[in-house]
Amino acid sequence: LLRGARKMEDYGRFLALLVSALLVGFVSVVFSLVWVFQYRGGLSWDGSTREFNWHPVLAITGFVFIQGIAIIVYRLPWTWKCSKLFMKFIHAGLNTIAMILAIVSMVAAFDFHNAAKIPNMYSLHSWIGLTAVIFYSLQLFLGFAVFLLPFAPVPLRAALMPIHVYSGLIIFTTVIATALMGITEKLLFSLQNPSYSALPPEAIFVNCLGFLLVIFGTLILWMASRSHWKRPPEKNAKVLQPIGETPEGTEAESTMTDGGNADKSDLRINSEAARKQNLKFDEAGQRSTM
Amino acid sequence: LLRGARKMEDYGRFLALLVSALLVGFVSVVFSLVWVFQYRGGLSWDGSTREFNWHPVLAITGFVFIQGIAIIVYRLPWTWKCSKLFMKFIHAGLNTIAMILAIVSMVAAFDFHNAAKIPNMYSLHSWIGLTAVIFYSLQLFLGFAVFLLPFAPVPLRAALMPIHVYSGLIIFTTVIATALMGITEKLLFSLQNPSYSALPPEAIFVNCLGFLLVIFGTLILWMASRSHWKRPPEKNAKVLQPIGETPEGTEAESTMTDGGNADKSDLRINSEAARKQNLKFDEAGQRSTM
Repeated sequence: LLRGARKMEDYGRFLALLVSALLVGFVSVVFSLVWVFQYRGGLSWDGSTREFNWHPVLAITGFVFIQGIAIIVYRLPWTWKCSKLFMKFIHAGLNTIAMILAIVSMVAAFDFHNAAKIPNMYSLHSWIGLTAVIFYSLQLFLGFAVFLLPFAPVPLRAALMPIHVYSGLIIFTTVIATALMGITEKLLFSLQNPSYSALPPEAIFVNCLGFLLVIFGTLILWMASRSHWKRPPEKNAKVLQPIGETPEGTEAESTMTDGGNADKSDLRINSEAARKQNLKFDEAGQRSTM
Repeated sequence: LLRGARKMEDYGRFLALLVSALLVGFVSVVFSLVWVFQYRGGLSWDGSTREFNWHPVLAITGFVFIQGIAIIVYRLPWTWKCSKLFMKFIHAGLNTIAMILAIVSMVAAFDFHNAAKIPNMYSLHSWIGLTAVIFYSLQLFLGFAVFLLPFAPVPLRAALMPIHVYSGLIIFTTVIATALMGITEKLLFSLQNPSYSALPPEAIFVNCLGFLLVIFGTLILWMASRSHWKRPPEKNAKVLQPIGETPEGTEAESTMTDGGNADKSDLRINSEAARKQNLKFDEAGQRSTM
């Protein structure tokens, strides 16, 4: 009974964080729309600054909000009864949508630049942003080839999973940093009389959008890095393994962090630590079943 | 023997990453100095733009490079024979130096603004940067009060450690994002004829500095989040515990990540996962002693 209460408390904490993240992410998207409609003339696809306006809207919607949800989709407890394969399709699908929106967002910026004879690819924002899109595409392609297609052997999956997870979190973080640079650029360019430094309402509003993006990132990364919110390993993991293999690969697949149990080298190297751990888990097991 | 070889291989990998991080961090500091001396008239403290130049130099040196080293200082294997208390002083000391440099860096920017009658605190860079300095000071103060002074009880330390670690990594990441915004602003302001968009040598050089900062962050965060590179728990942890307490608190203190073993709720809630873990650690223990 006590254990159930603790489980519920932890579940409640997860839900509160999830709702906060979704809210902050959704409000960010709304802010990007209010920005372009209220202050920047709205959206169109005609080579004008209104075409450029698709750039922040689609980048924030796809590359920040949807990518953020794709990152934590394995953590949703009500999906744990779905098959792992199904959840991989959801994860890959959301990331594919995010990539498409990121690319369209980039095309809008290039298109506007070309129509207005503004040079492309000179700013740090554009350098890091394009790098992020390239790495994101690579990540999607490799993720598909290694973890979704059935050909990669379990040890390869286990070896690549920590890198897949870390790359994903770094790309997500870099995208948010890139958005902050983009906001900085755009406000400096477009605010004239009054300038950015006079802090007109648009400047305050869009600075707040920047803050929201940082808070969204902080919430998503917290949820993604708590090992006790991980999807539990498959019950039939051992059945699916080649005989003689340990179920490490499948375990590693279901992990979002490099927490103690994910990594082969981890298990091999820290044998002393493992034995101590062992004692502690015994204790924990006994305590929680009392 | 095989185990020793694996340990050495892992040690080699850690060293390679450490040397890369130190190199990239050091080169970033050098780049910031070349930037201000080669292109921006050097350093002085006279209210001119040469006083402002202290801002990027000290921010990159203290708030990025030294903070980065402070984060991974517990990971250096040759410090594991030093007492935990001594290493805490090193960690706190490096962070104190970083904070002082960050504050002096901020003062340089304000001083220059005031002398040149430029408004303060309007840009997203300044909003997020000041927030980072405030949270960093809070983090240092709380870290000192809870983990360095001997008054806080072990359960409180255990409960706060994952938050201390996560806040530290988020502040570090946010500081790098702030530096990227600062670079964007400064290049847009100072490059006129040729402008930033004409991509003169200074623009390319400082864009590269921005890239170096992202690479430095990626290396530091990787080292900080690998659980198998953690400082091993103290041998005498049990002796220092009140009778009947498990050594979770001390364990948590020595962890840089929320890897399986750090968190009390983790141990209590996932009892099923814990028992499976248990089996796996048994396996690992046997394998590595064979």
